Amino acid sequence: MSALFSLPGIDISTEPVDLICYSYDASIAPPSLPYAVAWPRTADDVSRILKHASEHDLAVIPRGAGTGMAGASIPTVSGALVLSFERMRKILDLDPKNLQVVVEPGVVNAALQKELEYHGYFYPPDPASMAVSTIGGNVATNAGGPRAVKYGVTRNYVMGIEAVLAGGNLLQVGGKVQKRVVGYSLKDLLVGSEGTLAVTTKIRLKVLPLPDDVMTLLVSFQDLEAAGSAVAKMIAAKVIPRAVEFIDRSALEVIEAHKPTGLPKNCEAVLLIELDGYPATIRKEAERVAAVCSTLGGEITVAEDRFARERLWEARRAISPALRNLNRRKINEDIVVPLDRLPHALRELRRMSEQSGIPIVSFGHAGDGNIHVNIMVEKESPDEYRRGLELVREVFAMTIAAGGAISGEHGIGILKEPYIEMELKEQELDLMRSIKRTFDPKGTLNPGKVFTSVPRADVWGSQIPLFS
Amino acid sequence: MSALFSLPGIDISTEPVDLICYSYDASIAPPSLPYAVAWPRTADDVSRILKHASEHDLAVIPRGAGTGMAGASIPTVSGALVLSFERMRKILDLDPKNLQVVVEPGVVNAALQKELEYHGYFYPPDPASMAVSTIGGNVATNAGGPRAVKYGVTRNYVMGIEAVLAGGNLLQVGGKVQKRVVGYSLKDLLVGSEGTLAVTTKIRLKVLPLPDDVMTLLVSFQDLEAAGSAVAKMIAAKVIPRAVEFIDRSALEVIEAHKPTGLPKNCEAVLLIELDGYPATIRKEAERVAAVCSTLGGEITVAEDRFARERLWEARRAISPALRNLNRRKINEDIVVPLDRLPHALRELRRMSEQSGIPIVSFGHAGDGNIHVNIMVEKESPDEYRRGLELVREVFAMTIAAGGAISGEHGIGILKEPYIEMELKEQELDLMRSIKRTFDPKGTLNPGKVFTSVPRADVWGSQIPLFS
Repeated sequence: MSALFSLPGIDISTEPVDLICYSYDASIAPPSLPYAVAWPRTADDVSRILKHASEHDLAVIPRGAGTGMAGASIPTVSGALVLSFERMRKILDLDPKNLQVVVEPGVVNAALQKELEYHGYFYPPDPASMAVSTIGGNVATNAGGPRAVKYGVTRNYVMGIEAVLAGGNLLQVGGKVQKRVVGYSLKDLLVGSEGTLAVTTKIRLKVLPLPDDVMTLLVSFQDLEAAGSAVAKMIAAKVIPRAVEFIDRSALEVIEAHKPTGLPKNCEAVLLIELDGYPATIRKEAERVAAVCSTLGGEITVAEDRFARERLWEARRAISPALRNLNRRKINEDIVVPLDRLPHALRELRRMSEQSGIPIVSFGHAGDGNIHVNIMVEKESPDEYRRGLELVREVFAMTIAAGGAISGEHGIGILKEPYIEMELKEQELDLMRSIKRTFDPKGTLNPGKVFTSVPRADVWGSQIPLFS
Repeated sequence: MSALFSLPGIDISTEPVDLICYSYDASIAPPSLPYAVAWPRTADDVSRILKHASEHDLAVIPRGAGTGMAGASIPTVSGALVLSFERMRKILDLDPKNLQVVVEPGVVNAALQKELEYHGYFYPPDPASMAVSTIGGNVATNAGGPRAVKYGVTRNYVMGIEAVLAGGNLLQVGGKVQKRVVGYSLKDLLVGSEGTLAVTTKIRLKVLPLPDDVMTLLVSFQDLEAAGSAVAKMIAAKVIPRAVEFIDRSALEVIEAHKPTGLPKNCEAVLLIELDGYPATIRKEAERVAAVCSTLGGEITVAEDRFARERLWEARRAISPALRNLNRRKINEDIVVPLDRLPHALRELRRMSEQSGIPIVSFGHAGDGNIHVNIMVEKESPDEYRRGLELVREVFAMTIAAGGAISGEHGIGILKEPYIEMELKEQELDLMRSIKRTFDPKGTLNPGKVFTSVPRADVWGSQIPLFS
């Protein structure tokens, strides 16, 4: 495999320090060393690498910022070359007349937002990882975020993709126009495909004008189900807030222990509700939201200024890091249930936690039914870990029975692959596998991810400590 | 093929009167008689028909209301069975808590709108054919309409699809939740696939609360390019109207000759602009729109009430039928160009019309760059018809050079199939053909459509008069 080094001008490393840095991601998937790491600078670099990889039977693992929660960028097979997009982070073209922007995949979401805001625009998808995660990674997982309730997910903003196919050929799909019915939508096939179909090298995104104003409300509830049912009631009252975030009691405790933020303590759950638009619109919607929440016994406070607003959001985004302080191992899932099933799902999650004795911390995007379920198992206890995994199966069964999905924005990666058959029938999986073979007949791209099974031992094998 | 009649309980006809009724659509594609017509009532009926068709090598041509502009529902091969959804037009479930509705494919768009409006909701996609066209057909062509500029196209509202695969198996993709990253998006592959991958039997759609108010403005311009450039300028002024329709001088003349509506006459083009939302929001946006249009020399009038508004929209929707009065043969295309290239495209279309001496009537959805280009050739003149087709090629070349697409909402069908290679490279077509084979290995579903070439003679063959 030393033939790799015959790619002049492309930065490639096999130094142990680099291999270790690219052996893990933000998920609990055990680290696994790649064979090498490459940092392409252009689509042509990517093309040459993919051609080379195909000829030498190397696996290629595309990687954004490694913030993935499902292990999709972990090199789980031998001879794997990690493709890191740290040197492809240019914003290539901001085109306000068409409300579009063209970026390289390594651009960090927050960096794009900052540039856009300066010009009076914004890019709606805002995953909690946005300060770090890349647009390429966001596209690979069809990332959502709080604002999805009103504005939709990454797919709704991807206008066009330039990507390199497994053999090294450049592919261009979609483009500058919103309406297009010219054959099948290959673009929509690539979005959410977790790097298994092609390697993205350029992305054209739709952007929107910044709203004139934003209002953030914090509503605390003494009753868990009341908080859960508030969302469907707001929707029925014909208000679609730009965000409705949910934090349950256990998550509130974790945040306060981590870094006091002044969030209410003596309550079962809070909703963080955000409205945007013209000031007059916001006032009208806020009245409707207040009416709905009061009826359910919610106590409402309004963030007075942008600093108060930012403090609330910091608290919300602190949950995931704060969970590390519990000194437990976190098995985190991101289920989605239909809005009207949210109270049921929250009740069931609490019941499972009480019955199993394993803490479950729930928070997330109530506005679109997307709950981040954190099953906190004891460290160094393989037995409790195994019981935690059983709980995962129970959580997924409840989700699917409620008409939901086992992943809203994290993707399948390797961690949810054992569960995908709970949601998809063999027939759907067959169609998907066939599409995979069409794009990547040799299985070069991100093997072992989503549904392309690799023997479990290869992933959870004994060479990797189960509790790292 | 008489084995068809061994499907008890399914209405099937081979009567000439039925065959003739289902031999054509709204396009200029020459009629072609099917072998039989079937009217399924349930997904199970569709499944049995498809199983039977597969076993007996019949082609299956799914058909909504036959309003297609690209000939996608014309039976162009022998042994073709038209599947008409006239008996599957139930609204199955309106679910306001989740902002969703489930319909059978034969439901007419306007019938759905009426039902939704009664409950305070609307379904954004509004193709000009909405009084007649079905949701199944809208999904097959990823239909748009005027409101797409603000609200997006059919794809953005399809949550889930139940469909029957070529062999007769039922497939369910998507579902009740907005966020879902569980394998590839088969749903997005089916939307816009023009009946070539599977036959839709149930559709789950997202709906929205009706806006509090709507304002309709009519702006007339003395300068064609000024009208074209108004759109990008409104967008740059951060107003996204819910519709910006464009009608050029030649189309205005056609409407007035058909049925006087009081539209302005002595101008080069008009824009029909619609804003929606809370009244205060609308007033604010209307001020911005007025400022942009005035600067460009536009004269603005506001429709005073819903009757005045409806009159304007009737005029707009009358264009397509009114064109028939010109007593010419209409070759109609629906190109899309990026917003900032709209003035260029309009100028080029006028130039082509002047140079060729063939009238070109342009109108359509300026708000998203989607122009309906009507090349009006003399009847009974094969020579001018041929020159018209050359103009089509010229229009498409201009469109693609401007970064646009050759079809925004009509699809490819058979009429644009000869041109698809102008937009898609062989590599993209290969991927699509391979996907087609994955779903429909025997080529049962809507053969000869989109890119699955049939010999031209089969479509434009001598048994069918070229000028019907």
